[in-house]
Amino acid sequence: MKLKDIGEFGFIDRLKSKLKADNSVVHSIGDDAAVIKYSRDKYLLFASDILIENVHFKISGQKDIFAKIGHKALACNISDIASMGGVPKYAVISLGLPPDLDYKKALKFFSGAQKLAGKFGISIVGGDLSRSEKVIVDVSLIGIVKKKNLTLRSGARIGDIIFVTGPLGGSCSGKHLTFTPRLKQAQYIIKKYKINSMIDISDGLAGDLWQIIKSSEKGAMLFEELLPITPGARSIKAALYEGEDFELLFTVSVKMAEKITKDKKLKVYAIGEILGNRKIFDLVNKKGRRRKLKPGGYEHF
Amino acid sequence: MKLKDIGEFGFIDRLKSKLKADNSVVHSIGDDAAVIKYSRDKYLLFASDILIENVHFKISGQKDIFAKIGHKALACNISDIASMGGVPKYAVISLGLPPDLDYKKALKFFSGAQKLAGKFGISIVGGDLSRSEKVIVDVSLIGIVKKKNLTLRSGARIGDIIFVTGPLGGSCSGKHLTFTPRLKQAQYIIKKYKINSMIDISDGLAGDLWQIIKSSEKGAMLFEELLPITPGARSIKAALYEGEDFELLFTVSVKMAEKITKDKKLKVYAIGEILGNRKIFDLVNKKGRRRKLKPGGYEHF
Repeated sequence: MKLKDIGEFGFIDRLKSKLKADNSVVHSIGDDAAVIKYSRDKYLLFASDILIENVHFKISGQKDIFAKIGHKALACNISDIASMGGVPKYAVISLGLPPDLDYKKALKFFSGAQKLAGKFGISIVGGDLSRSEKVIVDVSLIGIVKKKNLTLRSGARIGDIIFVTGPLGGSCSGKHLTFTPRLKQAQYIIKKYKINSMIDISDGLAGDLWQIIKSSEKGAMLFEELLPITPGARSIKAALYEGEDFELLFTVSVKMAEKITKDKKLKVYAIGEILGNRKIFDLVNKKGRRRKLKPGGYEHF
Repeated sequence: MKLKDIGEFGFIDRLKSKLKADNSVVHSIGDDAAVIKYSRDKYLLFASDILIENVHFKISGQKDIFAKIGHKALACNISDIASMGGVPKYAVISLGLPPDLDYKKALKFFSGAQKLAGKFGISIVGGDLSRSEKVIVDVSLIGIVKKKNLTLRSGARIGDIIFVTGPLGGSCSGKHLTFTPRLKQAQYIIKKYKINSMIDISDGLAGDLWQIIKSSEKGAMLFEELLPITPGARSIKAALYEGEDFELLFTVSVKMAEKITKDKKLKVYAIGEILGNRKIFDLVNKKGRRRKLKPGGYEHF
């Protein structure tokens, strides 16, 4: 059987049992970042994202494309650390580049990454270079999270209200290369409110909400009318299934949800509810009619 | 100008000035791993290596090739941590794989990596997957080093004896896929002796010795007669310039060298001497005739 027959998530499920972690590892594979023991009141977070030409971006014809790729490669990882409740600290960057590439373009890649790193207090401390036909970039990021701020996918509770930090869809039109990771928002809500579960939307709203309910062993329903859609995004479908919005998706109790909705410093959108019945994963339209959501997000294979 | 015109090391030199690290970073780009403040008596080490099909390995025709790639991808990084005097702890693995690949072969990759990880007490804690035409793997590794054990490239002193931990050359014939990183030896010599500088040989003996003398601002000469050559390696040239031996290259004072040479538990080879004159980078044959060594190691561009 081929990878495309079992899919990315099918492969990850088969893979998990093969890997062993020692007891200094608090959470291994299965969240946006691994969680590792660090100090009395803090954990280390460790995340990694690979971007490949013609899969995650195209080179030809785009203005400042190398700076944008550098930005995106780091931004994806910052988003992973943010969604765990942590703060990013140290990055290593591995790059595959064609030998015929103008070296100034290659330097622009690092300018793009450094500009974002500077903004978020991240130090780029090393990496690796290789020749390659296609442009490839893999960033690994170490973050730090206070134990009391750690937020996993698996903490969603029955009755939780589902929130998202911004409008969805339309990432394919270029936003995925220039987005600002929601670190500031994540830190704000985590310090001020009790968040039960959180994930960043990298595989599409439906796919990432599915990750939350699967690992929390719950069900969910979303309300079509409440979904914030990026101006210019084509449809509800784009908002549900297009990957790489990089907004945060989180769930809180009804009591917290009331406080959050009244918080004038915070622009977030309540879009649905967590249910006890694990078989329900539905979209409800304004007439109250339900439609099943597709559980999968963006599948790489 | 293209990357191939300025070369890998020319590019890294231009890159360094673009990147900024905060003062929790003890050593950034320029050694086998970055060094980061951690606790009263320990540092974190952070390393990354990318391997690309047809650059670092070939898929076709080799037995167990996926397990070997998994082994090699982790082993390169262990070697980096070992040469800094540290112990590897946590790895993340990013993989690009063709969707048409048999998923059992892809699992073999993780079996190979996990087998080595288990041997060295490393936890594989996460990573990323993407589809890709070519097989691509990037491993990032966090290690820990006692402050007193930290060993840099830049510490070589005038009169130091240059040692290597094993025979060189012949890596292209397959050893580069199956080598055991020299962690045990590194830990042994670091705990027992005072090591002034160390690096792992990934770009060839001449290239990596060049890194030591460049960062230590010294010169060096090697003695042709003393170079240990892998049985089957074709020539002195293979021993000097073939990359990926993954033996350790280190320098110690004459006094330490005497002790090390007498240590029956240790199999290492004295091969040369560090000099004060930065212009000397020579190979001396048995007649005492000198020949200039090529400073560069394996160049990726």
